[in-house]
Amino acid sequence: MSVLVVGSVAFDTVETPHGVREEMLGGSATHFACAARYFTEVKVVAVIGSDFPSEGLEFLTSRGVDLEGLQVRDGKTFRWEAVYRGDMAQAETLGTYLNVFEDFSPVIPESYKDSPFVFLANIDPELQAEVLRQVRAPVLVAADTMNHWIADRKESVRNLLASADAAIINDAEALMLTGEETIPLAAQEIRGGGTNHVVIKKGEHGALLFTGESRFALPGLPMTDVRDPTGAGDTFAGGFMGRLAQLAEVTESALRESVLYGCAMASFNVQGFGVEGIANLTPEDIDGRVEEFRDLVRV
Amino acid sequence: MSVLVVGSVAFDTVETPHGVREEMLGGSATHFACAARYFTEVKVVAVIGSDFPSEGLEFLTSRGVDLEGLQVRDGKTFRWEAVYRGDMAQAETLGTYLNVFEDFSPVIPESYKDSPFVFLANIDPELQAEVLRQVRAPVLVAADTMNHWIADRKESVRNLLASADAAIINDAEALMLTGEETIPLAAQEIRGGGTNHVVIKKGEHGALLFTGESRFALPGLPMTDVRDPTGAGDTFAGGFMGRLAQLAEVTESALRESVLYGCAMASFNVQGFGVEGIANLTPEDIDGRVEEFRDLVRV
Repeated sequence: MSVLVVGSVAFDTVETPHGVREEMLGGSATHFACAARYFTEVKVVAVIGSDFPSEGLEFLTSRGVDLEGLQVRDGKTFRWEAVYRGDMAQAETLGTYLNVFEDFSPVIPESYKDSPFVFLANIDPELQAEVLRQVRAPVLVAADTMNHWIADRKESVRNLLASADAAIINDAEALMLTGEETIPLAAQEIRGGGTNHVVIKKGEHGALLFTGESRFALPGLPMTDVRDPTGAGDTFAGGFMGRLAQLAEVTESALRESVLYGCAMASFNVQGFGVEGIANLTPEDIDGRVEEFRDLVRV
Repeated sequence: MSVLVVGSVAFDTVETPHGVREEMLGGSATHFACAARYFTEVKVVAVIGSDFPSEGLEFLTSRGVDLEGLQVRDGKTFRWEAVYRGDMAQAETLGTYLNVFEDFSPVIPESYKDSPFVFLANIDPELQAEVLRQVRAPVLVAADTMNHWIADRKESVRNLLASADAAIINDAEALMLTGEETIPLAAQEIRGGGTNHVVIKKGEHGALLFTGESRFALPGLPMTDVRDPTGAGDTFAGGFMGRLAQLAEVTESALRESVLYGCAMASFNVQGFGVEGIANLTPEDIDGRVEEFRDLVRV
């Protein structure tokens, strides 16, 4: 089953203790698509400026990503600049230049409207809701958000999550959104609002899933070669949604396995700058990493 | 097989967001023994003052803990005062009163000297080494340490760990001890010094085991009722060493299972003040918690 993602396609300039890269292909929809495409057909809704090079488009289309929903607007593409210091747990944003993204209004092409799996990356919650009004009877809708939207539009974020089947957010966002002091209470509160499944991303500490009466936790893979964490969360979401769409069922067992695939894809992502780490994997690479995770928690 | 623990027996005065408790029975050897005694015979080497009440001794002996190695000295028992704020990740020490512990010199009774499993809690590394000179051919010696000893006696700590089979330390201590930036590199460095097995305690994020060519990670149990984290690390060590001694073999599989038991016992510990959470468990309680952890990571 296919996956529709609505988010950003951008250029990132990033510095980490391992170097600097300027104007790399990035953005939430890009990282998501680069991960999910290993498992299923991916349809992208985003906006780019007229400065976007054809190599960027080719990079995605040659990997089977459907760009029919990619709008091209007169102007410059979204750009983000950041630096990671020390343990790289947190990016320090140096500049955000929305450019054509400022007036982004997602339009879902007719051929996308029956997408069974839908991922709403962290854009304005009103735009996320706008997407939901355009799709027809999806099997599962998952949504991300970020501190910026929680601070400015908490009610909109809550309403959006209430109308989604799954939240895929990080631990700090879950606490900020709910005002709770622990992750289990935050997850319970979000689920009480109508979101069936809550996935909490914990960076190097792995991920948690709350679904039905069950909780699932996967630790992070102990890594020594983290080069750039940018996009790890969206890559997790891409692995998670891609695998879930491939399994084509929303059972507890499928959700657990999809968290495992999300963590595996995120672990590749952080090993390279931008999408370098996930651009050219083989099925054997992915199977091997998934086995590493299974072995890590075998008891 | 029995376990020998050398550490502190103390009175703790602790404040957390859930309340205040004054002069609770505490100390590393106490928490360790209270956890390990569910699995095997525990022999304690520590020192108390003449102010120590008989109820404290009864509390331990009635739970089958062997106190032949508990020295009683004229003076006051070790006391510690601390407060945990906010997310309770870190204790803020308000006062440390070593009292009789200041001149503690561990003497291993003859009946303890053939203990197959030995745990050296975080006392002066010279005293830890002194214990090792007194025991005969143990199957496995594990040692803990703390930031204080790493700052003041790094070489002694390194030498002690080199002569131990296992290190059971927390993540911050592993990084501080080795100067490495990641936990896998720190574990590799410690193992390179001669310590076969390295267990890293990560608090709410669980624990890691590095042994042979293998890595094992267990996430923390998502909890909403953490009342007092005091002694969680020593309780983990007690569950780990107790289970390992009960299994009576040092294989990768036994080590993994013992980490699981360590995490399970630590999760009970934090649910109550001092040793309240682990004082009166049934085998069913422990089996149930272990199953919760197995289910948590089932994929």
